[in-house]
Amino acid sequence: MIELLLIGIGTGNPDHLTLQAIKSMNAADLIMIPRKGDNKADLAELRHTICSQVLTNPRTTIAEFDLPVRDAANPSYRGGVDDWHDAIAGVWEQTIRTHCGTEGRVALLVWGDPSLYDSTLRIAERVGRILPVTVTVIPGITSLQALTAAHAIPINEIGAPFLVTTGRQLRDHGWRADADTLAIMLDGECSFQTLDPQGISIWWGAYVGMAEQIILSGTLEDTGPLIVQTRAEARARHGWIMDIYILRR
Amino acid sequence: MIELLLIGIGTGNPDHLTLQAIKSMNAADLIMIPRKGDNKADLAELRHTICSQVLTNPRTTIAEFDLPVRDAANPSYRGGVDDWHDAIAGVWEQTIRTHCGTEGRVALLVWGDPSLYDSTLRIAERVGRILPVTVTVIPGITSLQALTAAHAIPINEIGAPFLVTTGRQLRDHGWRADADTLAIMLDGECSFQTLDPQGISIWWGAYVGMAEQIILSGTLEDTGPLIVQTRAEARARHGWIMDIYILRR
Repeated sequence: MIELLLIGIGTGNPDHLTLQAIKSMNAADLIMIPRKGDNKADLAELRHTICSQVLTNPRTTIAEFDLPVRDAANPSYRGGVDDWHDAIAGVWEQTIRTHCGTEGRVALLVWGDPSLYDSTLRIAERVGRILPVTVTVIPGITSLQALTAAHAIPINEIGAPFLVTTGRQLRDHGWRADADTLAIMLDGECSFQTLDPQGISIWWGAYVGMAEQIILSGTLEDTGPLIVQTRAEARARHGWIMDIYILRR
Repeated sequence: MIELLLIGIGTGNPDHLTLQAIKSMNAADLIMIPRKGDNKADLAELRHTICSQVLTNPRTTIAEFDLPVRDAANPSYRGGVDDWHDAIAGVWEQTIRTHCGTEGRVALLVWGDPSLYDSTLRIAERVGRILPVTVTVIPGITSLQALTAAHAIPINEIGAPFLVTTGRQLRDHGWRADADTLAIMLDGECSFQTLDPQGISIWWGAYVGMAEQIILSGTLEDTGPLIVQTRAEARARHGWIMDIYILRR
């Protein structure tokens, strides 16, 4: 039996690691690190850095694997994602068989937390259809918490709800009516630009928790254009960007 | 100047501590631990255990303070909370002045994460009106992540939003229409009982992350009554309970 350890590692600050994450990494026979060619956004170097800082078990092997590319031309978004997850599951299975056979503890270092807009759990489920596995999840600091920590703000107003959603949902559906606070993830397009900015405040951050962290906040009217510009410049400078923001009205 | 360090410590598993939390605790001159009389739900013992496990700085002092009681009879919920936060801020200020004067690093160990349904940031803001302070937030594992980790599930469906809300909101407003996934916090009354259970699944957990952890999941129709019973028994056995759940339709 293979035990898959899906380990949340936080958002790029090695000090986001929990003691549980460090113990789990050291309990692993194999740590699998994905590569997307020479794309810096795969953050493989950072995962290696984290391993070198906390691994003390000489029997833990680190193996890279090439992440299949998602077919963005698939007219069905869900269908494209499903095929992609199947392809990744196949690569996991090969990598596991090569290094562990059918017995051992295999860890994946998941950006943020495995529960939040992350595909690792879904891929693990697919691996489970072709290889006997158990899945153990180690929670990690999410970008949402790194964002609120950087701004030193609560995400919710007292006793009030908040909606966590994506840039695509914001573009397609606007501000859903039932919460006065939105947290927006997976937004490559500064989708807040599709809203009427009147009466809305924004707390934005890129590379939250990392040395490169940038944060901006204020009224959406004044701060929105500044974020668009800052984001474009930072992306050009670093070659990649991850950002997240909270809107409140 | 006083630097207030609001340190997320996770949900009762000492291994939820991040390296950043441990470093911040050891950088503190004073760690303040709240007491609610002999109420076990104050979790003061657990905070002391965490301190004894990770503190290596002999100059870090630990001080307990008595947490004022909220006036539940106040007809205005918000007004009652405001008064209560003012009273807590006053006790913080006294404790800080006694141990540090007006200079030093003062840490509070916040259950879960300071951003999520927690009053520590709001109290810190009030302390800032009577004492010069800066506020630094160290993110921690939330009960929501501990819950999803325990069940090994993602919180969101692919690309879909979810609403984080409270038991009171669920009782007063029912299932808000804009998300098919709800995460319910601060629910002392198993408020899922107010819903028509048809077509709803639940993932519930109490003491998530702790040795006492209990989890249940299934259809709301079958699992709901079991949760009500399990929760009552666990609360009677331990003298206190904290629980959280996810609903999906």
